[in-house]
Amino acid sequence: MVKIKFIPYNREIEVPKGENLLEAVRKAGIFMDTPCNGSGACGKCKVKKINGNIVSKNSRYITEEEEKDGYILACQSIIEADSTVEVPETESSSMHGMKIEDFSGNREKDIFQSSKKRMLESGMKFGTYVKKEYLEMDPPTLDDNISDFERLKRHIRKQLNYSSVFCRLPILRKIPKLLRKANFKITITHIPRGNEKTTIINVEEGDKTRELYGAAVDIGTTSVAACLVNLYNGELMARASSGNAQIKYGADVINRIIYSTKGSGLQELNYAVIQETINPLLDKMYRDSGISRDQVVSFVAAGNTTMSHLFLGVYPNFLRMEPYIPAFVKTPFIKASELDIEVNPETFIYLVPCVASYVGGDISSGVLSSGMWNSEENVLFIDLGTNGEIVFGNSEYLMTCACSAGPAFEGGEISCGMRASGGAVEKVSIDGNYEPTLGVIGNEKPLGICGSGIIDLICEMMFAGIIDRKGKIVKGLDTNRIRFDEHGIGEYILAFKDQYNLERNIGITEVDIDSFIRAKAAIYSGITTLLNNLSMDFTDIDRIYIAGGIGNSLNIDNAVKIGMLPDIDQSKIHYIGNSSLMGCYLTLMSEDARHKLEQIANSMTYVELSVEPKYMDEFVSACFLPHTDIDKFPTVKKCFNKSV
Amino acid sequence: MVKIKFIPYNREIEVPKGENLLEAVRKAGIFMDTPCNGSGACGKCKVKKINGNIVSKNSRYITEEEEKDGYILACQSIIEADSTVEVPETESSSMHGMKIEDFSGNREKDIFQSSKKRMLESGMKFGTYVKKEYLEMDPPTLDDNISDFERLKRHIRKQLNYSSVFCRLPILRKIPKLLRKANFKITITHIPRGNEKTTIINVEEGDKTRELYGAAVDIGTTSVAACLVNLYNGELMARASSGNAQIKYGADVINRIIYSTKGSGLQELNYAVIQETINPLLDKMYRDSGISRDQVVSFVAAGNTTMSHLFLGVYPNFLRMEPYIPAFVKTPFIKASELDIEVNPETFIYLVPCVASYVGGDISSGVLSSGMWNSEENVLFIDLGTNGEIVFGNSEYLMTCACSAGPAFEGGEISCGMRASGGAVEKVSIDGNYEPTLGVIGNEKPLGICGSGIIDLICEMMFAGIIDRKGKIVKGLDTNRIRFDEHGIGEYILAFKDQYNLERNIGITEVDIDSFIRAKAAIYSGITTLLNNLSMDFTDIDRIYIAGGIGNSLNIDNAVKIGMLPDIDQSKIHYIGNSSLMGCYLTLMSEDARHKLEQIANSMTYVELSVEPKYMDEFVSACFLPHTDIDKFPTVKKCFNKSV
Repeated sequence: MVKIKFIPYNREIEVPKGENLLEAVRKAGIFMDTPCNGSGACGKCKVKKINGNIVSKNSRYITEEEEKDGYILACQSIIEADSTVEVPETESSSMHGMKIEDFSGNREKDIFQSSKKRMLESGMKFGTYVKKEYLEMDPPTLDDNISDFERLKRHIRKQLNYSSVFCRLPILRKIPKLLRKANFKITITHIPRGNEKTTIINVEEGDKTRELYGAAVDIGTTSVAACLVNLYNGELMARASSGNAQIKYGADVINRIIYSTKGSGLQELNYAVIQETINPLLDKMYRDSGISRDQVVSFVAAGNTTMSHLFLGVYPNFLRMEPYIPAFVKTPFIKASELDIEVNPETFIYLVPCVASYVGGDISSGVLSSGMWNSEENVLFIDLGTNGEIVFGNSEYLMTCACSAGPAFEGGEISCGMRASGGAVEKVSIDGNYEPTLGVIGNEKPLGICGSGIIDLICEMMFAGIIDRKGKIVKGLDTNRIRFDEHGIGEYILAFKDQYNLERNIGITEVDIDSFIRAKAAIYSGITTLLNNLSMDFTDIDRIYIAGGIGNSLNIDNAVKIGMLPDIDQSKIHYIGNSSLMGCYLTLMSEDARHKLEQIANSMTYVELSVEPKYMDEFVSACFLPHTDIDKFPTVKKCFNKSV
Repeated sequence: MVKIKFIPYNREIEVPKGENLLEAVRKAGIFMDTPCNGSGACGKCKVKKINGNIVSKNSRYITEEEEKDGYILACQSIIEADSTVEVPETESSSMHGMKIEDFSGNREKDIFQSSKKRMLESGMKFGTYVKKEYLEMDPPTLDDNISDFERLKRHIRKQLNYSSVFCRLPILRKIPKLLRKANFKITITHIPRGNEKTTIINVEEGDKTRELYGAAVDIGTTSVAACLVNLYNGELMARASSGNAQIKYGADVINRIIYSTKGSGLQELNYAVIQETINPLLDKMYRDSGISRDQVVSFVAAGNTTMSHLFLGVYPNFLRMEPYIPAFVKTPFIKASELDIEVNPETFIYLVPCVASYVGGDISSGVLSSGMWNSEENVLFIDLGTNGEIVFGNSEYLMTCACSAGPAFEGGEISCGMRASGGAVEKVSIDGNYEPTLGVIGNEKPLGICGSGIIDLICEMMFAGIIDRKGKIVKGLDTNRIRFDEHGIGEYILAFKDQYNLERNIGITEVDIDSFIRAKAAIYSGITTLLNNLSMDFTDIDRIYIAGGIGNSLNIDNAVKIGMLPDIDQSKIHYIGNSSLMGCYLTLMSEDARHKLEQIANSMTYVELSVEPKYMDEFVSACFLPHTDIDKFPTVKKCFNKSV
């Protein structure tokens, strides 16, 4: 065994000689966001050796200068003797690696308000399946000495007219002391089934009938977003988001699935999303709103099919093996206590139904909130999260497919990529001298680039002549922002470290650009193939909704110009934000919405792109800026003609 | 802090100076059976000080000789400095204090067989609510790629004609790997509700339809008895009993209730009965029978009302405070996993319904197995466990009451008392020279006296002239078996320690006799009061069933002679053993029996003895051998006339 010490955390652990350094970092409980999960491909586990004996492989992510200073990639390093290593404290290494963001501003409240308004306009009524009632019971006497539980049931039968009253063990355990403390004046929370039966899920002292809350959670592969809602009026009580702590086990669903097959991997992934991500978000919202855990008695979550499996701790490996079978698409009845989710333990956990192995509940939920299920127009719904899913249809039919876009839209697998959160470059323009102007979320100093920023950057680089239409950096330009490494791979520096006092420069490499071009090509070719499948083309699209974690500042025009979206009238294209969370929010408030959601998930027709004969050709043609066939992008062609 | 070491366990712990020695024994994880729970009344926590500084109060349980040898009562001792103490290894100090007994002999099987036979004769049909089915499903293909869960449900709908199929999270987690390992040939265990709906509670590889098992447990205050049963044919697969590990917190229900109000007392009591008593019994039965935990999918338990509360972890304190209200009499739906009971986690835990605060599910269950609910004759059912409950009635009506008899019938609060298990003196006769002949369970060396032995002993002492009719030992008899201590309290030695190489003599003191007389008087006066309440007397009794842990060798004649049972034709009196366990066994096998049980619990009329005006007079009159009014016991009177 050898000792390995991590600063500035001041943590020291013992590991076997020869242990991988990234493994040791994890064992020490320090979070590193490693999208490639230790293959050396992403360069994100850069640490600094202070002393000791650690043997590391070379990496293109370590410059000669950095190598002299002791920088190494943890995943490419082996601990040979007692050593000390400095792990940079980054955005993601605090609090289980999760920086929790606040969204309690008025803008956020407006989004929820208008979503609720649209729901009511579409004919869905308010009203949740959970009810509260205040009861004043007679205390027991020697003559009326039935048990507490019978007394409660008797009163409910009499006052509320239910013939059958059920409750579970935790309520039974609560009753004896609570009834007496409350002088037999209590509020019950219950779930009626029809007019005859009801199940008690909570008892509280006194009149608490106005305090009825629910939580909605969108479980993204990269980001998790949550809100706390008053179930009586849909008021947004709190809102929080963070990265998904599962990121330490891999950036995309395939790497997570692979991790789930190893030892206790499945349990670790389940623990990461619930204990390290969702529960901290709930805690923060409880602190922000003053609402107690026990008052939260409704819970709706949505995620892609892999996230849904990992959330429930269900083995997902058959999702990625032919014939690609999910363990479930619709979940059975599950209580919060079964998953250790920190809401009232008796709360029913509703996980939005998935459609297929690669189209999950997040898409069902997004379609619900988009309103396209109620539309006479043809709507194209695109979710740009990790991977990318597409739905096309209207009130008559819904077709869907999944694109293998990877995590690039959320900053994954991009060397300076990050989620659309504080410090992310969300907007970029480049002038004639190749000098960039940056828009940074929160007006902070730049820390990385999020999806919308990368779209801007690639588009601007293209029109500034920094990259060609293959995404390769043009040589010989007169600027210090362009560099080529020993392998000849070019990089454009967006922000110099000295200027902003950063750990390293923020830039984009040809490798990053290539990753992103393949991601946008996956989306574009997905749209084309889905329309072809219906014998339609772009002219049949009446409206496009873009959803997902790409960032609020998505520049639609630039997204068209790089060839991610079809070149149609841009007034038809709208960014609608986190539509999955919004669908969960509607489902919390309205039983009508829940029924609609079930219908949507049941009725969507899944198209498997990989078996469509033309898909691969479409994809390859789209791996260009904007496309190998520029005539498909008349607007872009016009710009080129102008700028040339 | 001071160090206290316990030998021969070789355990050393640190405790604050001034700690009570009995508390320290418990903290060290050593079990001592202390019926009085540390009040100094029972004398059962005798230990030997080896060295150190321990300050002890005097006790009548410590002889002068013992005091010289270092013997002290742990509960009456304070640790002042580092010390070493020897704790005797007794029957009850091994394996969490529980000696698990085996009952797999043919005699035991016969009891179960005849109980089953009686059930069938009374018109109740075989058949449990849990079913098994073998399914051969089609494996998934690219064309038939619905989820595993949907596939299972589809097959069940098709093959078994249920329109709704439910399952819970643990089954969902099991499905993906199991289906493929089993090549989609599996056995489901399910619980149908009507013809339409069913809930899957287990899935197994291959055809396991013949392996369907259930467990029945009688949770006594002193003893816990369990059996493992084949649900297809009622075959007894295994049988085990042990003491209730809760004994360390008090011998009777009142002391346990008081303990439950202190700190984590309720959790400790719940842990003791489930983790330290029931689960070890289940483990032993699994080892004996080769049946696996997962195959046990039905569970029935019965206990008195306090035991029922503690089994579920429900606060019982209002049971003992006017107006004596139980938290529940009938339990809600509870899964084994909620209580950490080691059967299949999805198993429904059926706790037999109680009648009132002091008439529990053990009595409901006993009445079921006695068959008195189906009888045209008037039957008196007496359960002689800790306390004593009485039921009188027939197929038309059932009246019940509880007697404050304490734990004496199971050896509790008797200085040399023990449960009816190996080493217990179960039969005694005494000759003209005051010399006893002992019948010991298992033909082992005597370790203590069980209930049936005490009845014999008191009866024989009375007729041998050793005690008078008040239970006082006659002075001046020519025998070395009678001794009086410094307080003048007499003792009769049943077994000298030197003769059997024992730790101490086995005897009975006047204090013990007095305890026992009050216990038997409680039963007798209970019977009288209950009959009076119905304007009946002993001549209306057609049959008496004695049940409970008093021991198989109960001598009915002696029980009448000491005035515990009414002096009626003894051919009408039958000992029926552990009727509570037998009722659980019937309930496991037959849904008819379960329905009957619910009816019995609902229909029993509870009579509160303490508010009956004549009860106290009856009790005082019965605190004599056999009774102050000898004319009530003509048979005994005749014997006295003969022997005088």
